[in-house]
Formats: sequence, structure tokens, C-alpha cells
Amino acid sequence: MPTKIKINILLSLPPSDFLAHLGGIYEKSPWIVQQFYNEHLSPSLDASVVEATKERITNVKQLFDEMKRYVKDGGKEMQLDLLRSHPDLCLKLDPPGDADDTATAATTTDEDITQESRHEQRRANLSTLTPTERTTFHKLNNEYKSKFQFPFILAVRNASKYTVLSALEGRVGSSVEEEMSNALFQVDKIAWMRLLDKVDYAEGANGHGGFLTCHVLDTANGIPASGMQIDLYRYDTVDSNDGTNTQKQERKLIKSFITNSDGRLNGPALTGSEFKEGQYEWIFYAGDYFAKYSGSRLSGTPFLDVVPLRFGLDDPTEHYHVPLLVSPWSYSTYRGS
Amino acid sequence: MPTKIKINILLSLPPSDFLAHLGGIYEKSPWIVQQFYNEHLSPSLDASVVEATKERITNVKQLFDEMKRYVKDGGKEMQLDLLRSHPDLCLKLDPPGDADDTATAATTTDEDITQESRHEQRRANLSTLTPTERTTFHKLNNEYKSKFQFPFILAVRNASKYTVLSALEGRVGSSVEEEMSNALFQVDKIAWMRLLDKVDYAEGANGHGGFLTCHVLDTANGIPASGMQIDLYRYDTVDSNDGTNTQKQERKLIKSFITNSDGRLNGPALTGSEFKEGQYEWIFYAGDYFAKYSGSRLSGTPFLDVVPLRFGLDDPTEHYHVPLLVSPWSYSTYRGS
Amino acid sequence: MPTKIKINILLSLPPSDFLAHLGGIYEKSPWIVQQFYNEHLSPSLDASVVEATKERITNVKQLFDEMKRYVKDGGKEMQLDLLRSHPDLCLKLDPPGDADDTATAATTTDEDITQESRHEQRRANLSTLTPTERTTFHKLNNEYKSKFQFPFILAVRNASKYTVLSALEGRVGSSVEEEMSNALFQVDKIAWMRLLDKVDYAEGANGHGGFLTCHVLDTANGIPASGMQIDLYRYDTVDSNDGTNTQKQERKLIKSFITNSDGRLNGPALTGSEFKEGQYEWIFYAGDYFAKYSGSRLSGTPFLDVVPLRFGLDDPTEHYHVPLLVSPWSYSTYRGS
Amino acid sequence: MPTKIKINILLSLPPSDFLAHLGGIYEKSPWIVQQFYNEHLSPSLDASVVEATKERITNVKQLFDEMKRYVKDGGKEMQLDLLRSHPDLCLKLDPPGDADDTATAATTTDEDITQESRHEQRRANLSTLTPTERTTFHKLNNEYKSKFQFPFILAVRNASKYTVLSALEGRVGSSVEEEMSNALFQVDKIAWMRLLDKVDYAEGANGHGGFLTCHVLDTANGIPASGMQIDLYRYDTVDSNDGTNTQKQERKLIKSFITNSDGRLNGPALTGSEFKEGQYEWIFYAGDYFAKYSGSRLSGTPFLDVVPLRFGLDDPTEHYHVPLLVSPWSYSTYRGS
Repeated sequence: MPTKIKINILLSLPPSDFLAHLGGIYEKSPWIVQQFYNEHLSPSLDASVVEATKERITNVKQLFDEMKRYVKDGGKEMQLDLLRSHPDLCLKLDPPGDADDTATAATTTDEDITQESRHEQRRANLSTLTPTERTTFHKLNNEYKSKFQFPFILAVRNASKYTVLSALEGRVGSSVEEEMSNALFQVDKIAWMRLLDKVDYAEGANGHGGFLTCHVLDTANGIPASGMQIDLYRYDTVDSNDGTNTQKQERKLIKSFITNSDGRLNGPALTGSEFKEGQYEWIFYAGDYFAKYSGSRLSGTPFLDVVPLRFGLDDPTEHYHVPLLVSPWSYSTYRGS
Repeated sequence: MPTKIKINILLSLPPSDFLAHLGGIYEKSPWIVQQFYNEHLSPSLDASVVEATKERITNVKQLFDEMKRYVKDGGKEMQLDLLRSHPDLCLKLDPPGDADDTATAATTTDEDITQESRHEQRRANLSTLTPTERTTFHKLNNEYKSKFQFPFILAVRNASKYTVLSALEGRVGSSVEEEMSNALFQVDKIAWMRLLDKVDYAEGANGHGGFLTCHVLDTANGIPASGMQIDLYRYDTVDSNDGTNTQKQERKLIKSFITNSDGRLNGPALTGSEFKEGQYEWIFYAGDYFAKYSGSRLSGTPFLDVVPLRFGLDDPTEHYHVPLLVSPWSYSTYRGS
Repeated sequence: MPTKIKINILLSLPPSDFLAHLGGIYEKSPWIVQQFYNEHLSPSLDASVVEATKERITNVKQLFDEMKRYVKDGGKEMQLDLLRSHPDLCLKLDPPGDADDTATAATTTDEDITQESRHEQRRANLSTLTPTERTTFHKLNNEYKSKFQFPFILAVRNASKYTVLSALEGRVGSSVEEEMSNALFQVDKIAWMRLLDKVDYAEGANGHGGFLTCHVLDTANGIPASGMQIDLYRYDTVDSNDGTNTQKQERKLIKSFITNSDGRLNGPALTGSEFKEGQYEWIFYAGDYFAKYSGSRLSGTPFLDVVPLRFGLDDPTEHYHVPLLVSPWSYSTYRGS
Repeated sequence: MPTKIKINILLSLPPSDFLAHLGGIYEKSPWIVQQFYNEHLSPSLDASVVEATKERITNVKQLFDEMKRYVKDGGKEMQLDLLRSHPDLCLKLDPPGDADDTATAATTTDEDITQESRHEQRRANLSTLTPTERTTFHKLNNEYKSKFQFPFILAVRNASKYTVLSALEGRVGSSVEEEMSNALFQVDKIAWMRLLDKVDYAEGANGHGGFLTCHVLDTANGIPASGMQIDLYRYDTVDSNDGTNTQKQERKLIKSFITNSDGRLNGPALTGSEFKEGQYEWIFYAGDYFAKYSGSRLSGTPFLDVVPLRFGLDDPTEHYHVPLLVSPWSYSTYRGS
């Protein structure tokens, strides 16, 4: 994990440092970042232009919005070049003539896979594909490449091999127009994830960061669910350390809360540097809450008791409101704002 | 766990065996079961009456519905007697060999708590109450007893100490009329849970058992979610074996499914002897499913990926339909039929 | 409709005026209001007590909370007296020896039905019962009275005859304890509705009034639904003027809104004197909103287009948050806070 | 409305009749239908091919699925031609120098708008655009045409002018690839709607038609909502007859139902020839239902009483399951299956 830089420091870096830091976010296409720099931050520009850029861009999302426009407006030829700059997912899976999957992978990697995408693909545990899955994968992947003339690209962080296979299966049937659009969307997502690793998004120049909130509504009684305990966990991906070169998820308790009289937490559950991209889980102790209702006719084994709610944060500059609407017999949740 | 008897065999037992088997389901009140037997199954009745009973009652729920009517229609005096036959939850808290509270607890236990309720209360881990919780518990419990003149009763199987405290806190504020109704409801629930341990409910005379089904709807696209993997887990309560005399929950994979073209499983997920009272969890691989949609704009870290859904089965004679309605940004579930 | 008085003026009325204004809220039981007055507002009390009351009670809800406690804590005998002070719903339906249901009703009314309940019952259109419904009604009503020894009471404002029949059918099966609790709940609701007609709840001494808000979440895209048009209608009950002596509902547009970038309205939809008890309807132009999404695959006849959401406000001192969570294929709503 | 033909009769028509009947479903592009006919139904084919076609295609959906493939696989040039065969929405709006909007429209129509699209556009009431809306419309429409080089196409049946404006506003920002895909999707939708007017879809050769079902779940009590009345209405678009040449919606009661013990209707609500494309509305009498629950603490003005649920049917060959999950304080619905 490279050092993260605050956005205001980043925007003041000399050209070569800026490029060294961010140039890799679009696969083998440093020119995108370069072009953004040239037009908005370069010392050769009028000082007022650079100043305006620094005023306009105070968090990582704003920075990204400006950079990705170069892809969107770059024309079809450039877009195809960018897509074709991505490695074939296959390389990792099937090193020619190599039983144990190591040496050759290293070899091919040097040329065909950048450091960033190797890391991301490892998380997908593609190496655990069964023979049948591997066959399916190769078949679909070849079909895909021959139909669209660019490699299959998926923003795969933490995705399982099933997600990869499912996405490949679904997208191979797209029209060429649709798939071009899909693939460019994925390219942006990859750049975004890489960018998050390089910018300290917790504190922009103006301190505009995202945060997480919660709310519990009791839909059986039409009131806020007050006094309910909620635990918040974070999932981290760690090495399996079992010789398989795979990774697994570990769950860690971050905080416990009790809902207030409005069914909310007092303040954000996560904010600042704690509010980072990743997978989280609320645990709602709904059974304890409903037991308090004298009229509630709960069973010896209630239908709902401990309610887990697992969710991912993708954009640490936004407000994630992740509430629970719950009766003893039903519940729902959604990404709110 | 006592031997479970099939319902048709149970209904043919001689009086003393019938009473020995079921007499304990209502705390220290074998007369309820006795009275049911006398009026519906006794050899001294006209044979046609007994025959009609056996035809009418073919599963454990029907049996229970008839027995619990004796409580409902028993009049206030009888109901108060029944409530007062229950042990004080407090007794369990003060374990023998404990400096301040000892002798009495050991003594009272032998006499005042039946085997069944001691077992159930242990699951609540009341012994892990912190000093503050213990004080609160005693205060509320005393308030409750002095207000209502009967002990606090809760069908506590698998309930945490928080559920117990929460229920006590909520119900101590009831009116006397309400709480009498609440307490009788709990008494019925306890009897029901005990009855389930004694009757082989998987196969009634007519084979009327309950079963579990699932359905996944994709609410973003308005279609059944087909091809989604679902895992079904069961939670069992086991001894902690850590010297604390407490219990913990263990999760075990039962089955894996792939939804069919209608978003359903092919046949019930659980039925017969597998469909038993307890806590379960669906794991829906929603992220893999949505990855298949070429137009889906999923993030590198999707908001929803693996969706867990934990639920309890209380009545093994019923159909539990536990579906998922899911978009990439929201989901809901409910006890269906 | 009697003149509404502001809460601070009300609390300063001399005893006889206070009683004249509020004494009728509990059917034929002015002593409840009297007792509240004597203990909290009477000139014969220490001035500091009266002052404290006025400081404590700044809206109609707080006033009601204090008055209803006299019922709750009044003991069983008093509660039964109160229940028995209510008229029999039957009187309106079946005036002895009267074919066309007019003259006699006036006669019986004088003695047995107070002015307030006559008005409320008329809204239920009980006079439109079919012969079969009327028979059912009488049968259940008699069963009810003979079982519970008090008349069937239902807070019937705007309720249809079906609601009345349904409630009667459901409650006749209650235990005596439960039904006593149910009936007292209804008595409180009636008092509450009558109180709302007599107090100007829009502005308490401190201006604490309720208000209505809305929020639209797009659950297909995981974002606030901005730019969606919403209309707000109010339903008023007006005389049918068709010679049937019945009433009907009329819908009137109050306001139109466009959701802002957070999917909300700018400020409350209703507040102050506009936020009053009654039935309302949101009309959400969801189809227009989703049409904006270039990727949305809407049909020629979309599954969801105009989404109506009808709801009632019962407590004008509270915040009613009535949101819509909507995808092109599903939606949900709830009473939020 | 042209005569509808049964699918099996349709598939046996001679070439010229087949083309005359269906040739217009794709705007000015009869060759699509022609090509389908030539390859699957033509008398010049081997008889076994024709037989296989007739066996394979037994309802209107299957027929359409085969015809639309010619568009999907037709290549970019053909697709652009097809898009450009569509009339400019503008023509209808702005007849040069014509106050009453009739004569010129007739003139332009002859050349530029086919009979089918004139009918569909009239439903959008574009003639009621305000001057501001008209200006916006022209601006966006011109921008659209100049960006994509084909006219803006929307399957507009029953769509309001707001839907048209909203769609135009949203889609003008698409990338060229995306918008090509969007526009072709709309073209298919238009063809589908036209096809439904020409085929008697109620009875395929094998009688495979769609149908409508309902289910009401009580999420406060975790049970099916039995005994609830539900009304089903249909909305029809009729001429306003107010001299404005516009159309309006009229609501007509089709049927009333009472839910059975499983919360369902006994059999489909609509099937066969009654189950046709259009807008419908369920009215659920939820307030009456909840009044039955003795423990329910409903208000004098319940939060939910009469619950309307308006929905559109687009595909009369499918099963539409449109359920209600409802508590006294919340509800949700979705397109089920």
C-alpha cells in the first residue's frame, strides 16, 4: 500500500511526482493523468487557472470526476486503446506448461500485467477454480475477446471467482455498443479504487469527507426503535496463510451503539479516517428490542432476533445512510442519503 | 432430550404413560393434560369420542390447540394458580457456593424449579449478568412480583440476558389486565416448546408437517432472480466448554441451492425431520447474481454482495416462506406463507 | 365545530369555562377533566403548582397525556363505569318501530347518545348496512355486550361500516382482560379526537407543532430521487347531499413539489395550521422520474408510473415522515420520524 | 383498432396477408417482418421448417422474440437506418403558422409520420406543452438529433408530456454507444405494442396466456391477511371530448375480491381476454382488516386505511404477481412471479 497523500499536497506536487503518484490509476495509460495535469495544474499554465483548480477540487471524488472526463470524451479509438491496455484475466489462470502456477506467472506478469492488477486479481481467488469452472472460464473468455476485440475487464476487488464467472457469462451476451460502455465503466471503477489507495480522502482541504449513519424504525408500531443495541463490524481481507496463496475475510468489531429516542445513533457511526472503503456489517439486536413490548407476542424462537446487515462502502466521500425498517416478522434496508 | 413419540402412538398411550410423557409441559400443572386426556382420550369414554379425537388430531399443533384451551377457559383463579406455579427467574442467578447468597438457592432449586425450566433458563446465560445488570434485574423483578403477584415468566429458549432484561423492563409497566394476558401467552409458549421436545412432529398420522421455502425476486429488474446460489445454515446451541457453564451458538452448513428460472428452489429447502424448531440462516450470493447483468453498474466494492438472513422457526407444523426481494441497493424479507 | 382555543389561553380559563370546554371529551364523564383541573390548575392550589403545570404543558399532546392518566390509574370499577357510559352503537341502527330511520333516532339520541358520538357515528355510514350486515351486526353486538358487560366502543371517525363490523368481529373473541384494555384504548382515542377539535394545536405556547416531510429514494440506482414531482392531496368528508344522510370523501390538491438533489422537499410539506388531523395522499410521478435514466429499460406501459400513497394523520403534534423507496418494479413506504 | 388474429391463424397466412398485417410494427421497415417470414414461414421453404416454426411459436411473445432478433443482429448500418425511419417527435408539436394544429399536421403526416406513430404520440398530449416546455423540448430535441444523428424515439403509449421531456433530458446526455442501445430498445418496445394490437394473445395455439394474481401478507403479525376486501380497477384512455384533442384516463371497477385463508384470491384475478395490456389499480381495504385485530392499537384516523396500488401490464403473455406486504404502519409491493 503506497503512502496516501492529502489532496491539497497532491495538487501542489511537481509534474513528475504527480505522475509518479497517480499515473498508474488507468492501466498503462499515464497520458490520462498527464493530460489532466497539463490542462489544470501545470506550472506552465496561467497561475489563475491552477488556483481555480485547487479551489474547485477539494476531495478525491472531485479530482476523479475531472480525470475520468478525459476517458469519456476521448473518442472511440482512444477508448479501445485503453481497454486493450488491460491484461487478460486468463494469464493468471493458465500459465503455459506450468503445473504449480508460479514461475511463469512471474514471467508473463512482467510484461503483461501491471503491479496493481496482479494484486487485485489475486483477491478473486481465481486460482481456486475447479477444472470445470476453469474450462467454462476459458471458453467464455475466448468468446468474449473474439466478439469484442478487447479483454474482459472487471473491477474485482474482493470479488469471488463466482462473481467473475457470473459477470463474464452475463456480459459476453451484450451488444458491442453496450459492452463498450460496460467495460469503460469497469475501467473507471478500477481507476477509482486505485486512486483511493493514493489519496488521503479522510480530510480534504475543506474537510469534506463521507460518513456512515443508521436509523431503526419499528414498522409494527410505527415508531422509532429506541434503545436497540447495534454492533458495527468491519471485514478485512487477509492472507489465508494456509499455503494456498489465497485470501480470506476476517470480521472485527469496531463499535457498539444504542439507538436514541429517535431510533438513531448520536452522531455518525464512522467518519474521518475510520470511514474507508470496504465491507461492513451492522448487527441489530431486534429480538431484545421487541421483547420490551408487553403486547408483542414473540415466540420461544422468534422469527427475527439478531439481524445482520452486510454492506460495502465504495465511495468514502459520500454519506452512507444504512437503516433498518423492522417488525417482528419482516425487515428491509436500503442505501439511503 | 426425551424420546419423541409419534402423534398416533402418543394418542394411544394408557393414561399413566400419557401423563408421564406430557404432564410436565405446563409447569407443575399436570391437571391440564390430565383433563384433556379425561375428556378426549380416556378408556372410560365412549369409544366413538376417542376415535373422533384421534381422527381430529393428526399433528402436534392440533394437539396443543386443544390442550391450551383448558388454560384459556379456565377462569381467573386457575390462571393465577398456573402463573404462580412458575419459578422465580431470580433463583438461577445466585449459584450455590457463592459467598453471599448460597444456601437458599441450592435448597430452593431442588424444590422450586422443575427440570425443564432450569434447562431453559441456563440458555439465557443469566449467570453472566454484570453487577449493574444484576441490580437492575433484581429491582425490576421485585417490582414486577409486587405489582402483579405472580412471577415474571418468559419463554426463554435461546434468549440472551438482554432479551430477558428488556422483556422485564417492558412488561413491568403493563396494566394488570394486559400483563395477565402477556404472562399466559408466555406460559403457552413454554408448554409448546416442551411439547415439541416430546412429539415426533415430522410425521403426523397423515404426514402433515411443515416445510421451508425460498424465493428471490430481483426488484431492480422486475424478474425472478435465477441462478443465484443460496446456502442454508443452522445454528445450534452448544456448551461453551470454557468452564463458565454457559452456552454458545454454532453455525453449520446444511445445504446449498441454486435458484431456478422462477427464482425458487426446486422443492422445499427443509421438510420432514430436518424441519425442526431452531435458528437458521440463508446466505444469498446476491453480488454474484447482479454481476451477471451487463448493464448493472456495480462498484468495486458493491453495496450488497453476500446477504445473510437469520430467522427462527418456532412452529414445525407450518409452512415458512422466507423470501428475499433484492436490488443492488436495497432488500427486504418477511415471514411469508 | 366548536371554537378552538390556544393551549395557553385554555390553561388560564376559570374552572367552569375549562370544564364547559373540555368536560365532554370523555363520554359522560366530566369528572376526569375536573379532577385534572383540581389537581393542576385550580385557583385553590398553591400558585407555584399552577405555574409548573403551565410550563410543563405547552401542547395538546402533553395536556392529553396528563388527563388520560386519570383513566389509566383509576382502578377497575371506575374504568368499567367509564366504558358503560358509552352509547350502544346499535341505537343508531335500529330505531324501534321506525322504517325510515329518522325521527326515532332523534328521540333515542336525546337520552342515550351525546352530541359528540352521534356526529362520529354518522361518519361510519352505519345506516347503509345491508339486511345481512345488519343481522350480523346485531348478533355480534349482543354477544359482545353479554360477554363483556359493556358496550362495543370504537373510535370511528371516517371509519367505514366494514371497519366497524371487522373490529366487532375481531374483538368479540378477546379474553375479558384483553378487551377491557382494548376498549379503554378506544375511549382514549375518542377523547383525543374530541380534544383536537377544541384546542388550537397549531401553536402551543412554545410553538411546538407537528409537521409532514417526504423523501424519495431510488432503490434501483441507490441514490436520492431528485427532480421528481409530488402532489399532496387532502381528503375531506362532506355530506353526500343525495338524500341518503351519508357522507363521502372529497379529494383536494393542496400543493405540488419537486424533490431536491437529496430527494427531499425544501422544508416541511405541511406545518402549523395546515398540518391537521385527517386523510392525505401523496401522488409520486415515478414514471416520469425513471424515464430520465438513459439505461432504464422502461416498457411502453411501465409497471410503475403514477404512485399514489394515502395516509392518515392522527397526531398533529408529531413529525410524520412519509417517504417512498422506489424502483421501476417495487416500492415501499412507512411512517418514519 | 385493427382486427386481432389468433397466432395459429396468423402463422398460416399467405405472404402478402402476413406482411399486410404485421409489416408496420417496425416503423417503415417491413423488411424485418418479411425476412422473418421468408426464413421461417414461406411456402418456398421445406415444409418441415414451417412446421417447426408453428410448433415453436405458440404465443405472441415467442413470435416477437424471433422477429426482434433481426434487429439485434442486423449490424450497425441497418440499425441506424431503422432508427432514422422514425418520425421526429417535433413534427406534431410545431406546425408552421398553424393556430389550431390540424391541417399542417395532416400534411406533414402524410410523408413523415406513419399512422401508428401519430396515434401513439397523441396520447402523450404533447399539444398541451406550455411555451416554456415547448422551448425546452425543441432545444433538447435538436441537441439530441445533432449529437446522435437519429431522432429521439420513445415508446410513448399513455406517457405524459413530462415523461417525454424527462426521457429526452436524461438520454441526451448518454454516450453514443449507450444511446444507440437505448433507442433500439425503444424501437423494440414500439414494435411490441403494435404487435399486441394485431395478435389475439389471449389464446395461443396451446392456450399459454398470462394472468394476474395477488397476495396480502400481514407483516405486523407474520400471517397471511385473510378476509381482506380488494377491488380491481382498470384505467382506460379516452378522448377528453373537451375540444382540446387530448385524452384522459377513466377508472372502471372490474372485480371485487375477498382474500382467502392464505391471503390470496381464489384463482387469477385476470386471465384470458381480460388480461390485457394497460393500467390497473388494486384497492386494498387494509384498515378494515387491521380493525379485526383486537390487540391492534389503531388510531381514530389510522395511518393506513385504504391502500391504492396502481400498476401497468406490458406483457400479456406473462404471470404478473402483484402482492401487498402490509402492517398498520408500512407497506411494500413489487412485480412478483
